[in-house]
Amino acid sequence: MSEATHVLLEEFLKLHPADLADRLQRLSLPEARGVLSELPPAPAGRALAELEHDRQHELLLALPAQKLAPLLDELAPNVVADLVPALPPSIRRATLNALPADQRRRIQTLLRYAPDTAGGIMSDRFIALRDDMTIERARELLRAHAQEERTEDIAYLYVIDAGQRLVGVVSLRDLVFRRAERRVSEIMNRDVKFLYVDDEEEKTARQFEHYHYLGLPVLERNGQLVGVVKASDALEIAQAEATEDMQLMVGLSGDERALTPWPKAVGLRLPWLYVNLATAFLAASVVNLFEGTIAKWTALAVFLPIIAGQGGNAGIQTLTVIVRDLALGELSPGDGRRALFKELMLGLINGLAIGAVVGLVGWLWKDSPELGLIAFAAMVLNQLAAALSGVVIPLGLKWFKVDPALASSIFLTTVTDVAGFFFFLGLATLVMHWTGM
Amino acid sequence: MSEATHVLLEEFLKLHPADLADRLQRLSLPEARGVLSELPPAPAGRALAELEHDRQHELLLALPAQKLAPLLDELAPNVVADLVPALPPSIRRATLNALPADQRRRIQTLLRYAPDTAGGIMSDRFIALRDDMTIERARELLRAHAQEERTEDIAYLYVIDAGQRLVGVVSLRDLVFRRAERRVSEIMNRDVKFLYVDDEEEKTARQFEHYHYLGLPVLERNGQLVGVVKASDALEIAQAEATEDMQLMVGLSGDERALTPWPKAVGLRLPWLYVNLATAFLAASVVNLFEGTIAKWTALAVFLPIIAGQGGNAGIQTLTVIVRDLALGELSPGDGRRALFKELMLGLINGLAIGAVVGLVGWLWKDSPELGLIAFAAMVLNQLAAALSGVVIPLGLKWFKVDPALASSIFLTTVTDVAGFFFFLGLATLVMHWTGM
Repeated sequence: MSEATHVLLEEFLKLHPADLADRLQRLSLPEARGVLSELPPAPAGRALAELEHDRQHELLLALPAQKLAPLLDELAPNVVADLVPALPPSIRRATLNALPADQRRRIQTLLRYAPDTAGGIMSDRFIALRDDMTIERARELLRAHAQEERTEDIAYLYVIDAGQRLVGVVSLRDLVFRRAERRVSEIMNRDVKFLYVDDEEEKTARQFEHYHYLGLPVLERNGQLVGVVKASDALEIAQAEATEDMQLMVGLSGDERALTPWPKAVGLRLPWLYVNLATAFLAASVVNLFEGTIAKWTALAVFLPIIAGQGGNAGIQTLTVIVRDLALGELSPGDGRRALFKELMLGLINGLAIGAVVGLVGWLWKDSPELGLIAFAAMVLNQLAAALSGVVIPLGLKWFKVDPALASSIFLTTVTDVAGFFFFLGLATLVMHWTGM
Repeated sequence: MSEATHVLLEEFLKLHPADLADRLQRLSLPEARGVLSELPPAPAGRALAELEHDRQHELLLALPAQKLAPLLDELAPNVVADLVPALPPSIRRATLNALPADQRRRIQTLLRYAPDTAGGIMSDRFIALRDDMTIERARELLRAHAQEERTEDIAYLYVIDAGQRLVGVVSLRDLVFRRAERRVSEIMNRDVKFLYVDDEEEKTARQFEHYHYLGLPVLERNGQLVGVVKASDALEIAQAEATEDMQLMVGLSGDERALTPWPKAVGLRLPWLYVNLATAFLAASVVNLFEGTIAKWTALAVFLPIIAGQGGNAGIQTLTVIVRDLALGELSPGDGRRALFKELMLGLINGLAIGAVVGLVGWLWKDSPELGLIAFAAMVLNQLAAALSGVVIPLGLKWFKVDPALASSIFLTTVTDVAGFFFFLGLATLVMHWTGM
């Protein structure tokens, strides 16, 4: 090891694992692998756990099993359970077999839960107290655990009965300062909020946001306590969910970043651009239907993108509000009709307000009251179409058990383009017919 | 009080404050005010604190100061400091004067911090240990506090020196299980992460996401410890920030919800739709420039929205990725050039891939190789314009100290519409000129 490398390692060892991970993120792959191999297993493992997904995956594959196992042994079983599915089956088996039996068994238990459920997020490093214990006995248990230093940061202690079922919660503070001969069941709070192992991670984040707890216990459906989730884990889920919603809405994968390599990004984006292209041809074919009308009255081509574009923008405002409220569980099933009414009122008022301006400009600019009237009417109708589809598209996707955000802006602008072109050119054709233009 | 009301109150009293708030949210204003007035101050205050912003504001104004003060006295000073700015000055003064002097002083201290900073979010209910205390003395202090029941959930205890400056952190568990005669300074961890009172709330959320702590201490710039922030507060901030980004991008206020009353929503949305209309006229005036070209070759009107629309969609994909990374602090200043390179590569490849299809369809549908070639070239150029503006617009807004999300999709589609129309119709005019069509 060179002197320079040695100095670098010394510096890295002083960093918090999350900061060390940031540094590893910016090194080349061989450099990062070199640093991870030279560091003691504990800081190396913790930094590995903090890396972004792509870099983590690269490094897991770049380290041999005999280097990897000591790193993984330093990590909480749930952190390892998040990492190992990325390994090819043979390497995964070799790595797991190189771990101590207890760590391996705990990881394998956690691997049974789907990664996007409370079971997939929870940690199994928690201390459960029995309801019939004395407080003195509970303190002894805690003291023994404290020496192991292998539990998560604690704010609450959960209480179970003889059947491992959750029956209450005690704050660490209460446990410490109540009289030693009392029983845990006498001081515990029985109204304890919890998650089930198969609750979706969105629900997990929502429960934390709703109740503001620092931790929540996770139960099997039979009521047995099997893990805990921390508020800070919920924060990461919420960030990831919000990113996913924003990205899905516009036809992105949900996990693209500004510095995602471009060959990967092409694969993620191009398919949706092709979907969008297909819908654009649909809209273009509406224009094509009316090519004769445009040939006689080319001023229509000038106003065409205004009618369609304003519909698209207003519709995406509606869509953004609805998708967000659905994602955060703030829109109950019965609220759909009220939201639709609100959006239609907005569509009508915005349509009248914008339509009046567009109509006036159309009349004065092209010296044609007919054009003004057509533009006005088409704008009002298209704003109503935008409001309707901004509510119906995400609720419809949800009905079909698809993420309400999925490419919804692409579907929406298809509606507003098709409707906008059809209303505007259709009305123009009628007016030309009636007035004999 | 009627029997029915009594039964309802009994039921409400059993609920968690957050669930009680959900019920109050769905009652009419007079009903909700009635329930809050009848409930004991502690549950009423906690439910009030959990309400959504609009309903909270209505109820604060609907309750007289002598009813309000006991409710506010039950709440943490920082929660009250979040509520009272919504009151008109005279009511605010009357309400604060009705509170005990200590509570009032603490609220007034917290009101000095801007609401969107760590100081504006932090709680002043924390226990600080002195570094020169014995562990025994620290335990006594904690026991005294535990009887007051007025601190937040605790996972860590922060350590200060004689000048109130933060010097370390101790876990509650360590404090409880280490030998009583040792000093706090001997068992504390000196590498403690913290926030400054004037740190923006985005930074607060990012620190929690980065380090996964359950709480962070907040310091004045001189190093004095003045408050603590909990991970669950950071979760709420992160949710609000993500919503704001999504909404600002499409020209919404950042706090509209699906059931926001429509008259309020009109006021929030219509101004941005007018901005969008102005930019739409800008784009339309480009089409107007080429009206003569369209009059001679109406098939152009059919392809016009495809070229512009695909540019808009691709640009919004870029924008969404950049805005998200800027918001979460994942794009460092030096990364801008790399991100731009990536997006231009994507623009080129997507442009060639989509342009080839559009060109081929143009050629075959309209039996015109010239139209195909023009559509192909305009699509490639507009995809490059989309990539460029998707990076430059948010970075530019940030440069001018404006939120990078603010109405950025409106600015972006202006660029892609103007550029798309100009490239497509400009090329068509040139080709017609050359070929003498």
